[in-house]
Amino acid sequence: MFEIFYLMKESAVKKIAVLTSGGDSPGMNAALRAVVRTANYYNIECYGVREGYNGLIHDDFLKMGPRSVKNIINQGGTILKSARSVEFRTPEGRQKAYNNCVKHGVDALVCIGGDGTFTGAKIFNEEFGIRVIGVPGTIDNDIFGTDNTIGYDTALNTAMEAIDKVRDTATSHNRVFFVEVMGRDAGFIALNSGLATGALDILIPEKKDSMEDLFANFRKAEKTGKASSIVVVAEGEKLGSIYDLANQTKEEFPDYDIRVTILGHIQRGGSPSCADRVLASRLGYGAVVGLMEGKTNVMAGMRSNDLVYTPIEEAIKKHNEINKDLLLISEILAI
Amino acid sequence: MFEIFYLMKESAVKKIAVLTSGGDSPGMNAALRAVVRTANYYNIECYGVREGYNGLIHDDFLKMGPRSVKNIINQGGTILKSARSVEFRTPEGRQKAYNNCVKHGVDALVCIGGDGTFTGAKIFNEEFGIRVIGVPGTIDNDIFGTDNTIGYDTALNTAMEAIDKVRDTATSHNRVFFVEVMGRDAGFIALNSGLATGALDILIPEKKDSMEDLFANFRKAEKTGKASSIVVVAEGEKLGSIYDLANQTKEEFPDYDIRVTILGHIQRGGSPSCADRVLASRLGYGAVVGLMEGKTNVMAGMRSNDLVYTPIEEAIKKHNEINKDLLLISEILAI
Amino acid sequence: MFEIFYLMKESAVKKIAVLTSGGDSPGMNAALRAVVRTANYYNIECYGVREGYNGLIHDDFLKMGPRSVKNIINQGGTILKSARSVEFRTPEGRQKAYNNCVKHGVDALVCIGGDGTFTGAKIFNEEFGIRVIGVPGTIDNDIFGTDNTIGYDTALNTAMEAIDKVRDTATSHNRVFFVEVMGRDAGFIALNSGLATGALDILIPEKKDSMEDLFANFRKAEKTGKASSIVVVAEGEKLGSIYDLANQTKEEFPDYDIRVTILGHIQRGGSPSCADRVLASRLGYGAVVGLMEGKTNVMAGMRSNDLVYTPIEEAIKKHNEINKDLLLISEILAI
Amino acid sequence: MFEIFYLMKESAVKKIAVLTSGGDSPGMNAALRAVVRTANYYNIECYGVREGYNGLIHDDFLKMGPRSVKNIINQGGTILKSARSVEFRTPEGRQKAYNNCVKHGVDALVCIGGDGTFTGAKIFNEEFGIRVIGVPGTIDNDIFGTDNTIGYDTALNTAMEAIDKVRDTATSHNRVFFVEVMGRDAGFIALNSGLATGALDILIPEKKDSMEDLFANFRKAEKTGKASSIVVVAEGEKLGSIYDLANQTKEEFPDYDIRVTILGHIQRGGSPSCADRVLASRLGYGAVVGLMEGKTNVMAGMRSNDLVYTPIEEAIKKHNEINKDLLLISEILAI
Repeated sequence: MFEIFYLMKESAVKKIAVLTSGGDSPGMNAALRAVVRTANYYNIECYGVREGYNGLIHDDFLKMGPRSVKNIINQGGTILKSARSVEFRTPEGRQKAYNNCVKHGVDALVCIGGDGTFTGAKIFNEEFGIRVIGVPGTIDNDIFGTDNTIGYDTALNTAMEAIDKVRDTATSHNRVFFVEVMGRDAGFIALNSGLATGALDILIPEKKDSMEDLFANFRKAEKTGKASSIVVVAEGEKLGSIYDLANQTKEEFPDYDIRVTILGHIQRGGSPSCADRVLASRLGYGAVVGLMEGKTNVMAGMRSNDLVYTPIEEAIKKHNEINKDLLLISEILAI
Repeated sequence: MFEIFYLMKESAVKKIAVLTSGGDSPGMNAALRAVVRTANYYNIECYGVREGYNGLIHDDFLKMGPRSVKNIINQGGTILKSARSVEFRTPEGRQKAYNNCVKHGVDALVCIGGDGTFTGAKIFNEEFGIRVIGVPGTIDNDIFGTDNTIGYDTALNTAMEAIDKVRDTATSHNRVFFVEVMGRDAGFIALNSGLATGALDILIPEKKDSMEDLFANFRKAEKTGKASSIVVVAEGEKLGSIYDLANQTKEEFPDYDIRVTILGHIQRGGSPSCADRVLASRLGYGAVVGLMEGKTNVMAGMRSNDLVYTPIEEAIKKHNEINKDLLLISEILAI
Repeated sequence: MFEIFYLMKESAVKKIAVLTSGGDSPGMNAALRAVVRTANYYNIECYGVREGYNGLIHDDFLKMGPRSVKNIINQGGTILKSARSVEFRTPEGRQKAYNNCVKHGVDALVCIGGDGTFTGAKIFNEEFGIRVIGVPGTIDNDIFGTDNTIGYDTALNTAMEAIDKVRDTATSHNRVFFVEVMGRDAGFIALNSGLATGALDILIPEKKDSMEDLFANFRKAEKTGKASSIVVVAEGEKLGSIYDLANQTKEEFPDYDIRVTILGHIQRGGSPSCADRVLASRLGYGAVVGLMEGKTNVMAGMRSNDLVYTPIEEAIKKHNEINKDLLLISEILAI
Repeated sequence: MFEIFYLMKESAVKKIAVLTSGGDSPGMNAALRAVVRTANYYNIECYGVREGYNGLIHDDFLKMGPRSVKNIINQGGTILKSARSVEFRTPEGRQKAYNNCVKHGVDALVCIGGDGTFTGAKIFNEEFGIRVIGVPGTIDNDIFGTDNTIGYDTALNTAMEAIDKVRDTATSHNRVFFVEVMGRDAGFIALNSGLATGALDILIPEKKDSMEDLFANFRKAEKTGKASSIVVVAEGEKLGSIYDLANQTKEEFPDYDIRVTILGHIQRGGSPSCADRVLASRLGYGAVVGLMEGKTNVMAGMRSNDLVYTPIEEAIKKHNEINKDLLLISEILAI
């Protein structure tokens, strides 16, 4: 049936290359594995390109088969390595990259990464007509066209487990902790990890915060007898740096024992969660199948448990909205 | 706005009771916390009932406030305890239960649990007219009306991490492991944890399996040079007990070093994952808000990231379908 | 035998109080549980004192029995809460504290904590003659008289797991990470977590470091083809702040992509490891038995798997030496 | 100093081979890494032998350098694979093995494993005079001459975490769980994981157990109001299979809701704990240094934090004693 269908029909691609680019995220290896094994299953040749677009430019291609991706589904990071390529931003760089694709007879690219990665893929496709398909691999979940990005669920659990630990100390010492989680432009990690750890307040770029509101929450907490508190702050919070927030709070509440913790890069690593491994497997598969069906300049995503393809342009321009209910709920539950 | 709306309108309920029933699942405490704190926020009195329906029958009610649910969002199990109540299956038992609800002036029940729990709630509502709302708390994910049940994501990660460990040994010894995961009637845990751990084959009640197909996969694996394999089997697999499967495989492949591992009850416990804590918080909130809006005999669920209410009858009768793509993908990727 | 012995002999104490003081560490709850249940077993009354020495001063005593410490063996932090008491540093404060001990008829104190905690206990004993016994609870492992302090093993695993995650990113991006772990005066956490994560270099207060040596290691690593590196730095490193080290390295190696991560307070929390739960159980038991035997002004510790008692003065003054072999081994293995 | 010493002196070995044999344990890879890199550091050639003694017999040697063991310190299992070799038990098999050692000019063997592995090494040394040194890698901790074996600490934490999860369910349902942990002849895992999880009773081969004592503990627990219980049973318990124990308990206490869980092979896998990685690194280093110093037919171990060498014969014949205090303490604390 489904499967037979592809085996019979003529695939639009014969030889593909896959790369991981931008910030790494847990599950990139699982996506890579899915791309390589799906290609193999449908008799499509597959190259891995090292260090993102730099590998295209410097001809760092390696032939990949089913065994070259064994035992990586559970590993964080990416065995192909990743990089942000300055040279690929130049026409000369992209020309070199294209020449190498031609040289290896690669007729399509699977680009695993985030915004920047997709922008590069889009331009590359428009300039040289080579087929490209994107797979959303980033912990920030700031890509449109998929409910979750690969690595997001793992990062949520990493942040949550770290905050759970901080909370042991906060409770034991009646302290106030300001915890910064990743998310330059998106508050998804902060909002969900904050809700999951019973944070007193959650400060994210998408909502207008004020010190007055924060202070009000502290006062409310005092009334209800809450002895310790955690405030989760997204990296990109507009109200100020986490140190500013902590200092202003200390001025308002001199008695508070206030500490700052920045979770930092631990959020990018680690063995992917089950949800991320499954998502990565489905999207890696979906990318190859999409190319076989002749799709290009699109991103493979999962929405409501269905495989969908979104024009890359849309995926970059539009953004998943923060769920307003979650803000209200986190406020109600942090009593 | 949204919030104000409720504060202004007249709530359909004044005093509610919440209970956890059936097999426990990680996140039940987070759901309980959300019910209690949301009720408190909207000035609704809230009782906790211990040991499920037995607590209703034996008048084991305790008044709960925001502080009674502190520091439980990250704890597995349920502080209200759970039980399967034989007495509640009798009219006499339910009459006693109703009398206690009347005695305490409880005008609505939030029932956190699975199939059995919901059946009880439905009958109780039909017999006595008391408002009931269900919250799906079970690791099996076999409830219709919600994309995921509370505890399912945590159980997936627990099963996956255990299989990852088994795999270290399998690989080091070139062994074949048959691993049984939970799921009497549903293969969700087996399918997803199997896909996430690169299982050679996944045997679930929803699909027609045969020893021939399994043996064929072993032979295919040998050809591709796969030295060790893991076969994930759902508890409810129809082909036979996991020991039968292992023995028949041993007869077919006498050289294989075959082992059986049954993960068992570790899959029910543990600190809930971030996804489960967030889901539980949203559904606990949704249950109270649903009752305030006058809903009854329904279950609160999340579908495509939206809060939805499904008639309990439907939630029990219908079932989430296993995703056929996943079966194909797991087969393709297990090369 | 052993047990009977105590039941027969006359115990030197009838009523004890236990407190946790100073920085919290994973396993304090397990130690507390052991103190309370051992006391109960030998028919000794037991009080818990909240917030360390402050609780003594402000009469925050609570009667504790076997059930008051149930389900805490696996919890980080301390249910008695901890605090650094300024008031206890004054004769007036200690006088108040003593009066409350007399008032409750407490004839001995079990003090769970680190250096500061023990200093306080020692003075308290010398001034008022009340029996005191110390239990080493700190993640820093900087207490003499015990091979490991309670919480140290858990902190090692927390730091190691965090560095493992950082390493996924480091490897994927060919980056250099400077990771700061806890340890103001002691490099135990840095040395062991660094060795366990294959750190290129480990900078600790106990050894004379130089930027030249660090740079030499970077150059050696380049030669051997090591593409990414992690440098683990103890909080108390004398060579400079972790940011200074990173900046100087950047000046020397402008091409390096260098990042800094400070693990911070996550190292104090979390569910205790098995080794810490067992250690805490043995020392909590040992503290009570020590008091029964008439010991005072000593600390209970484990050395070479034996329960030993060390004068508190020694425990504070002397220090466990960093194992020189470990420094050599970490250098050899980080090739 | 120390280091220079070796560089100057003449090493007793020029070319060594390392193998892992018997049941795998977490940390074998870390030990292997230490052997290979220490050898490299002291300019000793190093071969890895695959699948234990079988690799010696079938000439499965591979040259190993510092890079061949990168990124394995955190991985469970063994990249050299392990096996129990029947052929090596025959003189013919060992002759073949010796011929291959001669062929490759290997003048010493590092054998990582347990009892069986060491017995093989001893005979091999006695028959052919080839130098051998043992490194204790087994989760059972049943080797004399080292405080802990490599993998034991990790297995303890794996068992403990699994039992913690089981406990969530036990508590929620007022159930009694019988949990079987590994340990055919040794109760170390059972005793320590049982103590660390507050088990009501711990049944191990080293102590004379009786159903009467077990039942007495259940009755005592009922009196103290303990609603749920966990009984940890070592694989090698003499009183009967875990199912027998559960059934007899059910007969005695018909009202109990009793369940059985067998943790099984998850205890052998997983990323090694910090303690195991450090131990493995020190022993791998110690094995090479021991061979350089001319030692043979000994095992490298750590006792009281010192590197010690024990004649293999002793390591096999003698056994670490179960700590009697621990039995008493676990009984006292399980009130």
